[in-house]
Amino acid sequence: MDLRPIGVFDSGLGGLTCVKRLRELMPGEDIIYLGDTGRVPYGGKSRETILTYARQDIAFLRRHDIKAVVAACGTVSTNGIEEIAGDYPIPVCGVADAAAAAAVRRTRNGRIGLIGTKASIRSTAYDEKILALMPQARIVKRACPLFVPIVEDGRIGDGDPVLELVAREYLEELKKADVDTLILGCTHYPLIAGTIGRIMGPQVALVDSGAEIAALVKGRLEREDALAERRKGTCSYFVTDSAEDFAQTASLFLGVPVEGSVKRVTLGEAV
Amino acid sequence: MDLRPIGVFDSGLGGLTCVKRLRELMPGEDIIYLGDTGRVPYGGKSRETILTYARQDIAFLRRHDIKAVVAACGTVSTNGIEEIAGDYPIPVCGVADAAAAAAVRRTRNGRIGLIGTKASIRSTAYDEKILALMPQARIVKRACPLFVPIVEDGRIGDGDPVLELVAREYLEELKKADVDTLILGCTHYPLIAGTIGRIMGPQVALVDSGAEIAALVKGRLEREDALAERRKGTCSYFVTDSAEDFAQTASLFLGVPVEGSVKRVTLGEAV
Repeated sequence: MDLRPIGVFDSGLGGLTCVKRLRELMPGEDIIYLGDTGRVPYGGKSRETILTYARQDIAFLRRHDIKAVVAACGTVSTNGIEEIAGDYPIPVCGVADAAAAAAVRRTRNGRIGLIGTKASIRSTAYDEKILALMPQARIVKRACPLFVPIVEDGRIGDGDPVLELVAREYLEELKKADVDTLILGCTHYPLIAGTIGRIMGPQVALVDSGAEIAALVKGRLEREDALAERRKGTCSYFVTDSAEDFAQTASLFLGVPVEGSVKRVTLGEAV
Repeated sequence: MDLRPIGVFDSGLGGLTCVKRLRELMPGEDIIYLGDTGRVPYGGKSRETILTYARQDIAFLRRHDIKAVVAACGTVSTNGIEEIAGDYPIPVCGVADAAAAAAVRRTRNGRIGLIGTKASIRSTAYDEKILALMPQARIVKRACPLFVPIVEDGRIGDGDPVLELVAREYLEELKKADVDTLILGCTHYPLIAGTIGRIMGPQVALVDSGAEIAALVKGRLEREDALAERRKGTCSYFVTDSAEDFAQTASLFLGVPVEGSVKRVTLGEAV
């Protein structure tokens, strides 16, 4: 048994959709969450900047004596997280690996769709991860740069006309390509999974990377006999911009009201 | 005559719409532009963070021996730029002051509309600036958080269905309020002025803050006999993220191909 917390980071608050899944699956774990809200979004930034930020995020989490790191940021997990993971003595897991493995398990026709930010789609990380597991897979990708601002603008209700128009445009070619599995390659997307699923149709399996990484981390901790076997763990939240509006936005992603402390912190070196 | 350059900064590349206007009006001036693309956007950040970033931006520009600073960022110019302007021995002008004065000059019925980012609209800076000049003015405000991502996604053509749907929703209450003047309170908005103007109708004057600040700076330099009276000045561009994609996006905002050097720089202290 290992009672040390699990560290989770994201460029903003979208990674809380992972925290939601981690808590559902492993309610006994303590969780330390870092949202780099002072520098959100990472999506349009260069690979070099993204990895510098990721290193600073992990360094902060490690000050809390954590037993594992979850990179709950689609952009970080597709821009070289595996390159820096080896620099740490604890497991560092990215959402993209978990989602790629899940998509390969789910697909029947080998046609896998992927939606994400521009940086996630520009990278070939998902292609490499999927093709390593299923060399015959056909991957159809689409950047959906307006989905994050739409979610953050609160337009998440199925039927919102702006969400509907944008989603129909983004998903059209994925439908035409007859994918039977669609990876939601950004932690914001589970909030609009209702609309995405309806447009794609019931024959398409949606892969929620938060749910998949929670299962992956649980499996790894179980194998290492490192699960925290207590009734209920705690959550502590850290952000790099004002903590004022945190509770309202966070509860949107967590699906429940925020319990636990919220603090503002300072990260890293010069930008 | 003062041949030192004018410094211009913005959170990203939107402020290049101001550079475009400065060059049209004062072709002899040298211009140093800083786009803080590593930390863009400022719009959703706290006032404290916004002012910290602004101080770092101005400190960088001042290393180039400039004669004036233009805060070509709607968010900075409505979140306390006047509080920090007094800390510098050279003029520091924000786009909001220039736009507020222009709106007061233009309106006939005293009903002034304002559109901008969430942070610009949340602040009462525009209200205070307008009411100081025209106490009887009625100000109608609307945050348009999707306009920046829509412009950055290249959806600027009049007739783009997403732009049209979002613009109609955002502008509806401003039309109902019978404003005769509308301040484009974000440097990205001149790129969609065609659509905004068509929806508002020909009776509504649009105030482009880039054009207004260029006129204000020119007037100030003239009064101080500090205009650079040469045929053609140069432009130097600095960004805080990758300079790779700069030329393409920059030419969108400048309206002409980029001439002059582009360099990546590091700013300030810890975030």
